[in-house]
Amino acid sequence: MTLSPTFSFNIVHQSKRSRARVGQIVTPHGVIDTPNFVAVGTNATLKALDSLTVTQLGLQLMFCNTYHLMVQPGTNIVKKAGGLHRFIGRTLPLITDSGGFQVFSLAYGGVHNELKSKGKRQTNNTVMSVTEEGVIFRSYRDGTPIVLTPESSILAQKDLGADIIIPLDELLPYHIDAQALEASFNRTHRWQKRSFQTHVSDPAGQAMYAVIHGNVNKELRKASCDFLTKLDFDGFAIGGSLGKTKEEMFDLLAFIAPLLPTQKPNHLLGIGDMNSIDIGIPLGIDTFDSSYPTRCARHGLLFTLQGHTIKVLSSANRDDFTPPDPLCRCFTCTNYSRAYLHHLFKAHEMTGYTLATIHNVHTMITLMQLYREKILNDEI
Amino acid sequence: MTLSPTFSFNIVHQSKRSRARVGQIVTPHGVIDTPNFVAVGTNATLKALDSLTVTQLGLQLMFCNTYHLMVQPGTNIVKKAGGLHRFIGRTLPLITDSGGFQVFSLAYGGVHNELKSKGKRQTNNTVMSVTEEGVIFRSYRDGTPIVLTPESSILAQKDLGADIIIPLDELLPYHIDAQALEASFNRTHRWQKRSFQTHVSDPAGQAMYAVIHGNVNKELRKASCDFLTKLDFDGFAIGGSLGKTKEEMFDLLAFIAPLLPTQKPNHLLGIGDMNSIDIGIPLGIDTFDSSYPTRCARHGLLFTLQGHTIKVLSSANRDDFTPPDPLCRCFTCTNYSRAYLHHLFKAHEMTGYTLATIHNVHTMITLMQLYREKILNDEI
Repeated sequence: MTLSPTFSFNIVHQSKRSRARVGQIVTPHGVIDTPNFVAVGTNATLKALDSLTVTQLGLQLMFCNTYHLMVQPGTNIVKKAGGLHRFIGRTLPLITDSGGFQVFSLAYGGVHNELKSKGKRQTNNTVMSVTEEGVIFRSYRDGTPIVLTPESSILAQKDLGADIIIPLDELLPYHIDAQALEASFNRTHRWQKRSFQTHVSDPAGQAMYAVIHGNVNKELRKASCDFLTKLDFDGFAIGGSLGKTKEEMFDLLAFIAPLLPTQKPNHLLGIGDMNSIDIGIPLGIDTFDSSYPTRCARHGLLFTLQGHTIKVLSSANRDDFTPPDPLCRCFTCTNYSRAYLHHLFKAHEMTGYTLATIHNVHTMITLMQLYREKILNDEI
Repeated sequence: MTLSPTFSFNIVHQSKRSRARVGQIVTPHGVIDTPNFVAVGTNATLKALDSLTVTQLGLQLMFCNTYHLMVQPGTNIVKKAGGLHRFIGRTLPLITDSGGFQVFSLAYGGVHNELKSKGKRQTNNTVMSVTEEGVIFRSYRDGTPIVLTPESSILAQKDLGADIIIPLDELLPYHIDAQALEASFNRTHRWQKRSFQTHVSDPAGQAMYAVIHGNVNKELRKASCDFLTKLDFDGFAIGGSLGKTKEEMFDLLAFIAPLLPTQKPNHLLGIGDMNSIDIGIPLGIDTFDSSYPTRCARHGLLFTLQGHTIKVLSSANRDDFTPPDPLCRCFTCTNYSRAYLHHLFKAHEMTGYTLATIHNVHTMITLMQLYREKILNDEI
């Protein structure tokens, strides 16, 4: 049973080799085949691609960031437009986060660097205070103080109207002492419970995924799974710091994933490189969101179906008139050569970023199809 | 008779009211209906739009800049690709210039400012010398000296393989004394003759348009028409400085246009705002190239079929969920609202530039269709 009658998760095939499964997440805006890749369109657009092109590429789930949309254009504007789908002209499913991730990651000077554990503890004072009530932060645009509470985050996400929403949580840096971690950990659970209660008072056809916390402390991770799986969330996302190395992350994922209910979709927040997907799928992770493939595209790093990457700006591409990936059937590879892309990047033409983004998104979608086929054949 | 059997200009209808005419320029890559707008894709792409999208929009002639392509990727690379059409994946006609315009306009600190006659005579020393032989200039990318002669410009344009090419000329600033003007004027004619001779020794299916010079001196303008129309160019472009005000330009155009042979296509170089098109068409100008509509798009200025413009960033558009131009049937107006475009521009998303460019190019193409209909009805 689920609180959202418009939302369900059907397991099509459970692999005999691993925890990997092929599934279908059913939402009011259609089906998401899993495992799948979730592209990130922070400002209500994938960078360099318009929404209809993204739909034509077949991207089944797109991630938008509530924090950015609160600041610009404001969730009230999106609500007035009739919700995020109508605002951006998207007919397929959307997911939004709580805003917490950006608030805290911007405050900690980019969680990405921090997670990679340069050991630096930066803060730019955008977070003005964190209390039981919520967080007060300064808008990155104009410094205006904005209050984000479990309730206001959910109301903002109700304005946006994505198919899947996420409760407010506090994202902690990797380097944090045990006492501060535990205090935040318990507060984050209370915030998620309040978020959930706000949500269920008016589900509005949306589903909500909990976010498993506890950083690299396995005891806390287990406690987080225990606490959150007792609430009737529609799915579970793995969040928080997962360590300072890939090995540490994979070890943690192998510990956490089996603690999650198999009958609900499992999501890995903010991680979508091929290596992590390779490891995550056999552990039973169903969806992976990441801006990595689109960011790589804009930096001229193209993915291929064979698994290697192509550096567009490499001088070897100057007079290479073959398609970027000869096996790829995307618009870019069907119509343009490596040499032309090389030229566009050299000339700093936006067209190059668009064509590269089309390719990387198409490749991610195709790779996920291949993963699903392999699971159906019990090869994973 | 023409030297290029693959090129012809057919007048479909001569207006009874003015020198305006509807015509068809036939090229190896298809027909250009005239009057028409020619969009500028300096670096072998319209900014923010890929080549196939431009074709789908119905842009019949696209202008690329030889100077930029010589510097990056190098015309040898384009030749190796099989020419510009194949390099950029364009099946419709292309026109390239000689390179001279950019060499001189970059040297004079942007001819646009100079033509607008701020009276400043700037030079950034990119032009190292101008002699009878040609011009030596520094690459804007790496400072490498590049020699551009009438012959080398044409050979570069042969490498590119556009349907229409342009002889080397010297672009003078508006503020120039009579003696320097006349010396350059005569040299420019000699350069154009040498360009023509190089071209006819191997036409390769290309057509060549002469460039009428003489700045604001009507006597020189007439002499330029006399000299150049004696050579068997396939068309005539009006170039050089046309004065410091629109009035001066329109007066000059009214003087020059009737001096050009009616049976050949007439082009106005680098000017394509609606006001100038309005004035130019009744004078018999057939094609107008300009980067103005695409540049306006990237700055959030949208054209409409009714003739007014829309400032995307205007706060009135924040919650205006109507299409940018309700009468427009372009991809952007069919699928997206003013509010969404406003948001994309506010968020500095490239997607906004792409959608705005699609709209402005589509609007220019549609407006030119409307002009042709009016001429067919003798309303212009």
